[in-house]
Amino acid sequence: MFLRRFASTSCLPPTIYDLLRSSTHTPSSVRVNGWVKSIRRQKNVSFAVITDGSSARGLQAVFRSGELAKRLTNGACVSLTGQLCDSPGKGQSKELQVDEGEVIGECDPEIYPIQKQALSVEYLRDNCHLRARTDSIAAMLRLRDTSKTAIHDFFKREGFHSVHTPILTSNDCEGAGEAFRIAQVPSIHPASAGEPSRTEEFFSKPSYLTVSSQLHLEALATAISRVYTLSPCFRAEPSQTARHLAEFWMLEAEWAFTQSVDDVCRVVEAAMKAVVNTALASQDMEVFAKDSELSRIEALRSAADASRAWPRISYATAVQELAKSGQGFQYKPAWGKPLQSEHEKWLAETLVGGPVFVTDYPIELKPFYMRLNDDGKTVACFDLLVPHVGELVGGSLREERLDLLKRALAYHKLDAEAYRWYLELRKFGGAPHGGFGMGFERLISWISGIENVRECIPMPRWAGRMLL
Amino acid sequence: MFLRRFASTSCLPPTIYDLLRSSTHTPSSVRVNGWVKSIRRQKNVSFAVITDGSSARGLQAVFRSGELAKRLTNGACVSLTGQLCDSPGKGQSKELQVDEGEVIGECDPEIYPIQKQALSVEYLRDNCHLRARTDSIAAMLRLRDTSKTAIHDFFKREGFHSVHTPILTSNDCEGAGEAFRIAQVPSIHPASAGEPSRTEEFFSKPSYLTVSSQLHLEALATAISRVYTLSPCFRAEPSQTARHLAEFWMLEAEWAFTQSVDDVCRVVEAAMKAVVNTALASQDMEVFAKDSELSRIEALRSAADASRAWPRISYATAVQELAKSGQGFQYKPAWGKPLQSEHEKWLAETLVGGPVFVTDYPIELKPFYMRLNDDGKTVACFDLLVPHVGELVGGSLREERLDLLKRALAYHKLDAEAYRWYLELRKFGGAPHGGFGMGFERLISWISGIENVRECIPMPRWAGRMLL
Repeated sequence: MFLRRFASTSCLPPTIYDLLRSSTHTPSSVRVNGWVKSIRRQKNVSFAVITDGSSARGLQAVFRSGELAKRLTNGACVSLTGQLCDSPGKGQSKELQVDEGEVIGECDPEIYPIQKQALSVEYLRDNCHLRARTDSIAAMLRLRDTSKTAIHDFFKREGFHSVHTPILTSNDCEGAGEAFRIAQVPSIHPASAGEPSRTEEFFSKPSYLTVSSQLHLEALATAISRVYTLSPCFRAEPSQTARHLAEFWMLEAEWAFTQSVDDVCRVVEAAMKAVVNTALASQDMEVFAKDSELSRIEALRSAADASRAWPRISYATAVQELAKSGQGFQYKPAWGKPLQSEHEKWLAETLVGGPVFVTDYPIELKPFYMRLNDDGKTVACFDLLVPHVGELVGGSLREERLDLLKRALAYHKLDAEAYRWYLELRKFGGAPHGGFGMGFERLISWISGIENVRECIPMPRWAGRMLL
Repeated sequence: MFLRRFASTSCLPPTIYDLLRSSTHTPSSVRVNGWVKSIRRQKNVSFAVITDGSSARGLQAVFRSGELAKRLTNGACVSLTGQLCDSPGKGQSKELQVDEGEVIGECDPEIYPIQKQALSVEYLRDNCHLRARTDSIAAMLRLRDTSKTAIHDFFKREGFHSVHTPILTSNDCEGAGEAFRIAQVPSIHPASAGEPSRTEEFFSKPSYLTVSSQLHLEALATAISRVYTLSPCFRAEPSQTARHLAEFWMLEAEWAFTQSVDDVCRVVEAAMKAVVNTALASQDMEVFAKDSELSRIEALRSAADASRAWPRISYATAVQELAKSGQGFQYKPAWGKPLQSEHEKWLAETLVGGPVFVTDYPIELKPFYMRLNDDGKTVACFDLLVPHVGELVGGSLREERLDLLKRALAYHKLDAEAYRWYLELRKFGGAPHGGFGMGFERLISWISGIENVRECIPMPRWAGRMLL
């Protein structure tokens, strides 16, 4: 049977990625299914690049007969059989000498929305359902997969279990209005005649889309001790920056028995380096590494170097450095004020020239759950800042001391009763613990160099915009 | 330094799972962090089982001095150092001879909600934040992780890419009222004095929580050709069965160039068997395999046997078999009527005695996107039925023929304009394709024998109920 030698234990025939990697040098009969990326017609022979999305590189198909080649158009779906051979040409190791084939899905080149010339990101956002057919979006999708696998591998090695925390929650994100709320549903108790129809909460109380899995992860980490999730999160923020989406994916990890911010940073740094190194080894980096960006790839490689630890500076030091930088910042840096995007970029890009952990922020800038430092005015936390992106990761030790946690709730004017379950995690066998959250699309942006996170997710959603 | 030999490339010290697996027979100094599961005090020595959630089995700690042992209570969080030795006792291979230690998180046994005696599932649902501390919920959480990893490994081997499809969508599930809707947000255009305050759609149009990722996966499969996702899905169904949740996780896969339902079933069968076999090899099955259930585990093992293919029968045959079964079904089986839960269970449990694919349902019972068979009255689809659970997987070929798809939209009274993007996937280089969806909690229920899916997810949500 066709192809068994490539994939004898598989249910499905080999992909183009498999065929291109095949180590045999003897021509072999294969069937190739895919889409036409480009066509070059010469007098006695025609060439087409076929892709099935499995690989950054397509497979060159060589047509000796003009008959089939004539009917090929960009975007058409084809099924070809022929001989897979070593390629004499430059730019590819293998090629397909086509014996026969057919067009199984026509594509009219006059009206096909994905034309060969460069298409604007805005145009491609409007054609969201087709944009994965472009090289860059396809490479981004594979990079997401590669990164996700590297994340899972890393956490497995470190003894973590992946968990699914809830998306629907009664937690409204401290009432800040950032959480999407679920609409009420028609009441099962019908209204009397003349009354307006009634609605009610499906869950008997208001429900929201999660803005972070952290509190739920903490509950699981007091039993499974090392847990993480890569989960969708939602923010009903109207902001339209290149770094924000209304729906995004967040890696969050939480583990018991960690006792210092340094420890947490060490895990973050190892995780990030594992992902970046895996990504750097993938073919897809070819798509992102245009000539003009080689310095960016070099910077990424240097950041991922295991022998060089990422610097850690305190918030206090960061503010001092910003103050004496002589930069004309829009926002004047000062103790007690948040670091602005412009500050974060300067710290990573100029002061350090690479990723940098900024630790121990003032208590008033951070959420209630972060562990109070002995100085009584800062918390045991960090932000990881990286060039071009800014904040990539945020994390902390969590306050495990019941009395201090109650005080923190009061300080942040939160209702202790709503957090009773959270307090009980400390009351019954509480453990020192910590964790972090990382915006997955920001990671993809950092690795790929794609500037806007809207191009770092298959189907982006932001204020005013949701296609499909 | 402590423990380096167990985990020299790790960021974190070894877990109890690592320690129990350690192959060395020379006693070695280790630190163990975890929670007390049980205590047995004798005259000169005390024993405690310590768990950190990493393993179905705990580590036995042996206390020669009574001082520390006296302060141990069930649920307390402890940090112990001592010698990890081969255990002379039965029931464990290793034990910890404790040198010293401390209670780092007290747990008052008088009021600790997780008492040693058997706790009802209802009580544990009420204590959702603590229930992962029970053996069965912890084992279920690890089984989810094991299954998820097996799923990812399987699809990676088969050349698939994992993708993240959107959770928020403009698709309202054909208006069936099953989709949760996102509430409107306060308008950025304030109302005039006296007018009621205005609200508006955040995305400029109504948005819903996804009920299935399939249509989005199809868009990606026309570019990446083999894609899958394990993603949260939502149904605002008021039903309170043991098989339904308002928030659940679904594995959905979609791939191009598949041409028959048999092909799709083959992939499903291989995927399910890979997951079940991986799960059967895990320690956690000990927790589920109570004596009374050994026959269930045997049945699972037999179902996962690679040498025995799962039977495939057509819907027509299934209806005939049901009709002549002589069972007093509540719903009389008849062509054109849906298979009820009672029918599905009989087919899997009695007729076949194992998993069974039922294929080729009448067109009126299935959604618009399924591929029409040549008979003009059935579609190329299947449901996979398994004992005790019923429907575990549903899948089909998708209609790739543009004219027939348009006709199917009309037949199901759907607005073709709303599906323009979906039609374009066929219009431009369409490929024959198919896929399936599997309820992840049902898989966990099938493997573990846990009857209610509410115990197959960390924090369940159903009509009227959402804790945390």
